[in-house]
Amino acid sequence: MRKVCIVVNSRANYARIKSVLTAVREHPDLQLQLVVGASALLERFGRVIDLIRADGFREEAVVYMALEGDTTANMVKSTALGMIELSSLFMHITPDIVLTVADRYETLATAVTASYMNIPLAHTQGGETTGSIDESVRHAITKLAHIHFPATDKARENLIRMGEDPATIYMTGCPALDLVTGMKDRSIDQTFWARNAGVGYQNGWSEPYIVVLQHPVTTENTEANKQIDETLHAVRALGMRTIWMWPNIDAGSDAISKRLRVFHENQGGEKVTFYKNFSSEDFIRLIDNSVCMIGNSSSALREGSLLGVPVVNVGSRQQTREHGANVMHADYNAVAIEAAARAQITHGKYVPDELFGDGTAGRQIADILATCKISVQKRLHYPN
Amino acid sequence: MRKVCIVVNSRANYARIKSVLTAVREHPDLQLQLVVGASALLERFGRVIDLIRADGFREEAVVYMALEGDTTANMVKSTALGMIELSSLFMHITPDIVLTVADRYETLATAVTASYMNIPLAHTQGGETTGSIDESVRHAITKLAHIHFPATDKARENLIRMGEDPATIYMTGCPALDLVTGMKDRSIDQTFWARNAGVGYQNGWSEPYIVVLQHPVTTENTEANKQIDETLHAVRALGMRTIWMWPNIDAGSDAISKRLRVFHENQGGEKVTFYKNFSSEDFIRLIDNSVCMIGNSSSALREGSLLGVPVVNVGSRQQTREHGANVMHADYNAVAIEAAARAQITHGKYVPDELFGDGTAGRQIADILATCKISVQKRLHYPN
Amino acid sequence: MRKVCIVVNSRANYARIKSVLTAVREHPDLQLQLVVGASALLERFGRVIDLIRADGFREEAVVYMALEGDTTANMVKSTALGMIELSSLFMHITPDIVLTVADRYETLATAVTASYMNIPLAHTQGGETTGSIDESVRHAITKLAHIHFPATDKARENLIRMGEDPATIYMTGCPALDLVTGMKDRSIDQTFWARNAGVGYQNGWSEPYIVVLQHPVTTENTEANKQIDETLHAVRALGMRTIWMWPNIDAGSDAISKRLRVFHENQGGEKVTFYKNFSSEDFIRLIDNSVCMIGNSSSALREGSLLGVPVVNVGSRQQTREHGANVMHADYNAVAIEAAARAQITHGKYVPDELFGDGTAGRQIADILATCKISVQKRLHYPN
Amino acid sequence: MRKVCIVVNSRANYARIKSVLTAVREHPDLQLQLVVGASALLERFGRVIDLIRADGFREEAVVYMALEGDTTANMVKSTALGMIELSSLFMHITPDIVLTVADRYETLATAVTASYMNIPLAHTQGGETTGSIDESVRHAITKLAHIHFPATDKARENLIRMGEDPATIYMTGCPALDLVTGMKDRSIDQTFWARNAGVGYQNGWSEPYIVVLQHPVTTENTEANKQIDETLHAVRALGMRTIWMWPNIDAGSDAISKRLRVFHENQGGEKVTFYKNFSSEDFIRLIDNSVCMIGNSSSALREGSLLGVPVVNVGSRQQTREHGANVMHADYNAVAIEAAARAQITHGKYVPDELFGDGTAGRQIADILATCKISVQKRLHYPN
Repeated sequence: MRKVCIVVNSRANYARIKSVLTAVREHPDLQLQLVVGASALLERFGRVIDLIRADGFREEAVVYMALEGDTTANMVKSTALGMIELSSLFMHITPDIVLTVADRYETLATAVTASYMNIPLAHTQGGETTGSIDESVRHAITKLAHIHFPATDKARENLIRMGEDPATIYMTGCPALDLVTGMKDRSIDQTFWARNAGVGYQNGWSEPYIVVLQHPVTTENTEANKQIDETLHAVRALGMRTIWMWPNIDAGSDAISKRLRVFHENQGGEKVTFYKNFSSEDFIRLIDNSVCMIGNSSSALREGSLLGVPVVNVGSRQQTREHGANVMHADYNAVAIEAAARAQITHGKYVPDELFGDGTAGRQIADILATCKISVQKRLHYPN
Repeated sequence: MRKVCIVVNSRANYARIKSVLTAVREHPDLQLQLVVGASALLERFGRVIDLIRADGFREEAVVYMALEGDTTANMVKSTALGMIELSSLFMHITPDIVLTVADRYETLATAVTASYMNIPLAHTQGGETTGSIDESVRHAITKLAHIHFPATDKARENLIRMGEDPATIYMTGCPALDLVTGMKDRSIDQTFWARNAGVGYQNGWSEPYIVVLQHPVTTENTEANKQIDETLHAVRALGMRTIWMWPNIDAGSDAISKRLRVFHENQGGEKVTFYKNFSSEDFIRLIDNSVCMIGNSSSALREGSLLGVPVVNVGSRQQTREHGANVMHADYNAVAIEAAARAQITHGKYVPDELFGDGTAGRQIADILATCKISVQKRLHYPN
Repeated sequence: MRKVCIVVNSRANYARIKSVLTAVREHPDLQLQLVVGASALLERFGRVIDLIRADGFREEAVVYMALEGDTTANMVKSTALGMIELSSLFMHITPDIVLTVADRYETLATAVTASYMNIPLAHTQGGETTGSIDESVRHAITKLAHIHFPATDKARENLIRMGEDPATIYMTGCPALDLVTGMKDRSIDQTFWARNAGVGYQNGWSEPYIVVLQHPVTTENTEANKQIDETLHAVRALGMRTIWMWPNIDAGSDAISKRLRVFHENQGGEKVTFYKNFSSEDFIRLIDNSVCMIGNSSSALREGSLLGVPVVNVGSRQQTREHGANVMHADYNAVAIEAAARAQITHGKYVPDELFGDGTAGRQIADILATCKISVQKRLHYPN
Repeated sequence: MRKVCIVVNSRANYARIKSVLTAVREHPDLQLQLVVGASALLERFGRVIDLIRADGFREEAVVYMALEGDTTANMVKSTALGMIELSSLFMHITPDIVLTVADRYETLATAVTASYMNIPLAHTQGGETTGSIDESVRHAITKLAHIHFPATDKARENLIRMGEDPATIYMTGCPALDLVTGMKDRSIDQTFWARNAGVGYQNGWSEPYIVVLQHPVTTENTEANKQIDETLHAVRALGMRTIWMWPNIDAGSDAISKRLRVFHENQGGEKVTFYKNFSSEDFIRLIDNSVCMIGNSSSALREGSLLGVPVVNVGSRQQTREHGANVMHADYNAVAIEAAARAQITHGKYVPDELFGDGTAGRQIADILATCKISVQKRLHYPN
C-alpha cells in the first residue's frame, strides 16, 4: 500500500491532476495524501480548496506559502516557505511517492523537498517547452524527478534527450483531458450562469461570448501593464460579451489585476464579466461554448485542442509549446489580437485533436504509481 | 561595469572558485560582490570565511542558512533559508550576474533565487556526473543557468545533449586547478605543520602520511555509520600516520563526526590527526605530498588528477565522475579499501593529467562574464 | 550621530509616527533609517509606501513579510518572516536605536529583533489598554523596550506599575496629534474628492457623511462576519452618504472584505463609497468634517478626541482604552449602533480634548533619542 | 479531556518540567502532547531527546529551529523558525492549552505562536528576575500568557504588580524540585561514572570534585571569551577534579566552546572532564555530591538551594534572582572566583531551603490545567 502525496497549489494544478486524484483514491494499492497549498487557499484566487472539497476530496494538510506582494523576490520567498513547510509535513505523513504538477514556480518547492528527502518524485507535463520562468522550472523539476508522466510524444522524446532514463518515462497523455472525455454533457444553459456569478456585466446570457485568460510572463514582468492593455483594447474593439478570468499569482499579477479593476469600475458600454474561478467541469463547458479564447493560458492549447476551441494565443508565454490547428498566434498588439480573434470567430470550431491525450491518463498514472520500481539515486542516462 | 555576485558556501566552494574571485576583482570591467554563507561561516567547519579574509577578500554580506541537525529535511530548510536571505540581498545589491559553484544542495538556493529574479545565472562544473543528491542538484542548476563553465570536454558535451544552447557554454576547465599551476612551491616542511594544528596524533611530522576525506552520501544517509566504519577499520589496519578531515555539512555528517570523535577520544596507538580545514594552497600541498588519498572527495579526482596523487575512491559518491589513471575504486569494505591503498602506496605518484583544466579557467571566466550576451528567457535547445 | 531606525508596517503606523520621522530627519544629531514593511507595501492595502515617498521620505529598505491568507497562524508566520528579514537588515545598517510603533501583531517582529540583537528599542503608545491581541502585544513590547514614549499620563502610570524604570519613560503625547495641530486648513472642498477616488457611490460630494472603519478583533476572529453585518445593517438603516475604509490585515479581514465586496457589488440605493487609503492629512480632514465616525479604529479616540468628532465605538477592540467625551460605545448590534449614531449626529461636534497630546510629540521624541542614556540590560524596577 | 501541549527546547527545560510531563500524562482529564525542539534535538548539546525517550515519553513532533552560528541575529532567526514550524504544528494537533517553560530566547516562539492563535498559554517561572536577555523574554512571555505558575512568593507578587490578574496566578513552586524530593537515593558510586562518560580527565572517581556550568550572557555576548577565561584560570588554580558542562546554545556559546576545546586539547596536569549532559536525576546526584558549583546556571540557585550545595555564582546572568544562603557571588575575576570557591569548599553543605518549592509542583500544575477557566482576551489588571 503506497502512500502517494499530491500537492495542489493553484486552480490550474487542480484541473490538470483531478482525474489522477480520483484514480489514486480509488486504487486498491494506493493511499491518497492530498495537500492543498499556495494560491489554492486564497480568497483572492477563488479558494480552489472549496471546489476540491465540494468534489469530495479531503486534504491531509493545507500549506500557506504565498508571500503577498508582486515581486520576483517574493516568488523566491514563497517557494522557500513551501519548502520549509513541506519538509516538516513529509516528516509527519511519510509519503512513499510525491507527485508534483507541471511548472509553476512554487511547484519547485515540492520537487526539491521530496528529492532532498529521498522520497521518489513523480512529475506531470515534463518535456514540454514554453516561455516564462516556467520553462526553466519545468526542466529543473525533470532533473530532480524519478518518474515522468509526459503528455505528448514529443515531450517524451525531449525527456530522453535531456538524459532521463527511458525506463522511468511513461507517456500517459495529460490528465486534464480525462475531464473532457469524461463529461457527458458540455452544454450551457441558464443554470450555468446562475451558479457561476461574476462581477461586472450581468446581462445577455444567451449572447455569444469570448473567454480571456492572460497571465503575467515572469521573465517580462515589468511589461505586464503594457501587455494587458493591448488585450483590453482588443476586447473593447471587438465589442462582444466577454468572460474574463483574473490572472494567476505571479510577479506582475498585481499590476494586471489593478488594470482590470480600474477597467471594471469604469466600465460603460463594455460587456465584460470578471470571474475568479469555475469548477473544473464548468470551465470546460465555458471554453467549449465560447466563440474564441484570447490570452496565454495553456488550457487553450491543451483542453482547447481536444475541444476544437478557436484560440488567439498572445505573446511569449506559450511560445514553442506544441498545439493543434486551433491556435493562432498574436504579438502584444491590440490590432493583431483583434484581427486574429475576428478570423477565429469567423472560422468557428475546429476538428478535435488528441495531441495532449485520449482521456485515460489518470488511471494509467495510478496503475504505474502502484507498481513501478524506483531508485532515489538518479544517473544522467546517456549510453556511451 | 558589470556587478558579478559570487556566493561561497563551503570550503570546497572556495577552492573551486578562488581564482575566479581574483580574476573578477582585478578585471577592469567587473565589480566583485562576494557573499559568504552556510557552513563557510561556521566554527564547526573551520570558518572558511577567516581564510577568505586572510586572502584579502572582503565579503559584501554573510548569509547564515544552515539549520543545525543532521536530517534530510534540514537540507531542505537550510536551502529555503538561503533563498529567503539571498532574495533580499539581491534586491539590495542588484547584481548583473550571479555565479554559483558546483552542486552542493545549498547552491540550489543561489540558482533558484537568481533565476526567479531574472538575474543571469552562471554555473561552474555543470555536466559532470556523480552519485548522491549532488547529481540531481547539478543538473537542476544547469536547467536554471544562463551561462555554463564546464570543466571537461565530456561535461560540455553533456550540457549540449541536455538541451543547453552551445552559445552559452564555455569550456574553461576547473578553476580549482588554477591554484595548482599557480603555486611555485608545493613542498612541505616543519613550518607547514606548525601553522596547521589539528587534534589527535601530534608526532612524526616527517613520517609519510595518508589523507582521508569521506563525506556522507545523502541518498544513502542512513548508511553513514556503517560506511565510515569500514574506512576507519582500513585506516587502523594500514597503521600509518593519517590526516583526517571532518566531513561536510550534509545529512549523515553528524553520525560520521560522532564516530570520528569517539575514535579520537579512544585513540591508542593509532596515528590519526583530525583537521577542519587548510588554506586552499596548503590543502594542495597536503595532498601532493601524501602517499595516498582515501575517501570520496572530488578533490581527489580533480586536483588529484593534475597532481598525480594515488587515490582510493570509496563508494558511490563520485560514481561515474570522470577521472584520471590515478584513481582506484573500492566499495564500502575495509578489506577492499586497505588492499587498494596498499597497491596505490606501492605504485606511488602518477603522471599529471590535465583532464580537469590547464590552470587558466579563472581569467577565461572573468573575461567571458565581462562581455557575454545573455537572455534571461531560456529555451530548450534542440534543433528540430 | 545616532542612527535611528523606524519601521513602518501599515497606514496606521505611518500617521502615528510621521511627525517623528520628520523631526528625526531634521535633527542635527540623528540619522533617519526608514524601513517600510508588511501591509504598507501592498496594493490591497493602498500601498502606503507611495504616500510616504510622496511626502519626501526615502526608505532604507522594504521588508515584505505578510503571508497571504486570513488565519491566526499566518499572523504568527508573518511576524516570523519579519524577524528573519529584519535581523539581516539590522546587521547591514547597524542602527543605534530602533523605534517600533504601537501594538499591531507584526510590530513585535521589530521589538524582538532589536532587543535580541542588543540594539536599544524605543516604543510609542506603551501603557495603553484595549482588547484584541493588540493588548498582549503592546505590553510584551513594553517588556522588551528600553525607552518608552507613552501618549497619556495614565499610560505613563501603567508603565511604571508594570515595572519599567521611570527614568526610561518620557510622556510626550501621541505624535499622531502633531499632524492635527500642524495643519492650517482642515476644510474639504471639491478638490478633496477629486484627488481621493473610491469605488462605489460617486455622487453628492456636498452631502453630509459618516466615516466607517471597522477592523477584525483577532481574539474573536471567527465572529468577524457577524460583527461586520451588524454595522452594515446600521449603515443601511441610517441611509446617509458613507465613506467606508477597508480593514487592516488581521485574522478576520478577508471575511470582512468579502462581505464588503458583496455589499459593493449589490449596492442599490445605498450611498457607500469604499476607500483603501487617504494621505495622513486628508484622513484628518475626512474625519474632522464627518458627522460621525463608526467602528473600532483607535483614530476615532486619538485624533477624534482632539478634533471633537462624534464617535460610535463598536465592540471590544478599544475596550478600556482612554477616550474623551466624544465617544459613545455600542455592542455588535445594528439597532444599538444606529441609535448611537443618530444621537451623535444630533449632538454634533464636541469640544477638543488634549488627552492624547498637544502636538509637540515628534520634536520631543527626536530630542530624547538624540541624548538619552541607554542600557541594553533591563531590570524589573520595583523598589524593595 | 484537555489536550496540553508542552514544548521542551533544551536540557534545562526538561529538568524544569519533567514532573509536569509525568503528572499531565497520568491525569485522567488531560492528554499530553509533547513537542521536542531546538537544542534538545542536537548532537552538540547531548541530544536531550534521547533522555526524554529513555524516560518513557513519546514526542508528538520534533521541531528543528536552531540556525547554526553564534550571533545574536541567529537567536532571532531561530525563534522565527520556531514560530513558523509551531504555528503549522498547532494547526494540526489543535492543543487546548500550550505550556512554555521559563525564559530562554526560543521559548518566546512558543508563547507568541499560542497567544496569536488564541490558544491559552501557560507559563512557569514567571515573575523571577535575572540578567541576560532572559530577563526581557521572561516578562514579555508573562504579558502573553493566560495562566501563570510562579515558583516563589516573591515571583507571584511581581506578576501581580506587573498587572496580571491574581485569579490566573498559581504559586506552585518549581517543578524542578519535584525531582529532588522524589529521589530516594542521591548517592554516587562507581556505576554513576561508568554510565556517564565525558571527555578529558578520566581518573580519580573517588576524588572530591567541583561542577562548573557557565553560559554566555547574551547582553554581554562580546565579552564571552574574557568571562570564561577568568573561570578557567580559577579552576586551574584550584587544581581539583572538575566536572565541566558545555554551555547552552546562545550568542557567545561558540566562543566559550572553542575556549573549552582548546583547554581540553592542551590539558596537562589539570583534572577537568567535559560533559554534554546527564539525565535529570544524575544531574541532581552530580551537584548534590559536589564540593562546590561554579558558574551562572540557575540550577545552582534552584535545585542547589534545596540540596544545600555551596555555590559560587559568577557575573550578571543570575543577578537579582532570589537565592538561599548557599550562594556567594563573584565578579568575572579569577582571583575572586577562586577565593569564593575556597571559602565555599571550606564551609561545606548548607541547610536545605524550600525557597523554590516543596516538590509538589507537577501534580498541582496538572490539576489546575485540567480545571481552570481561561479567557484568551487578556486585560491589564489594575484596580482603579
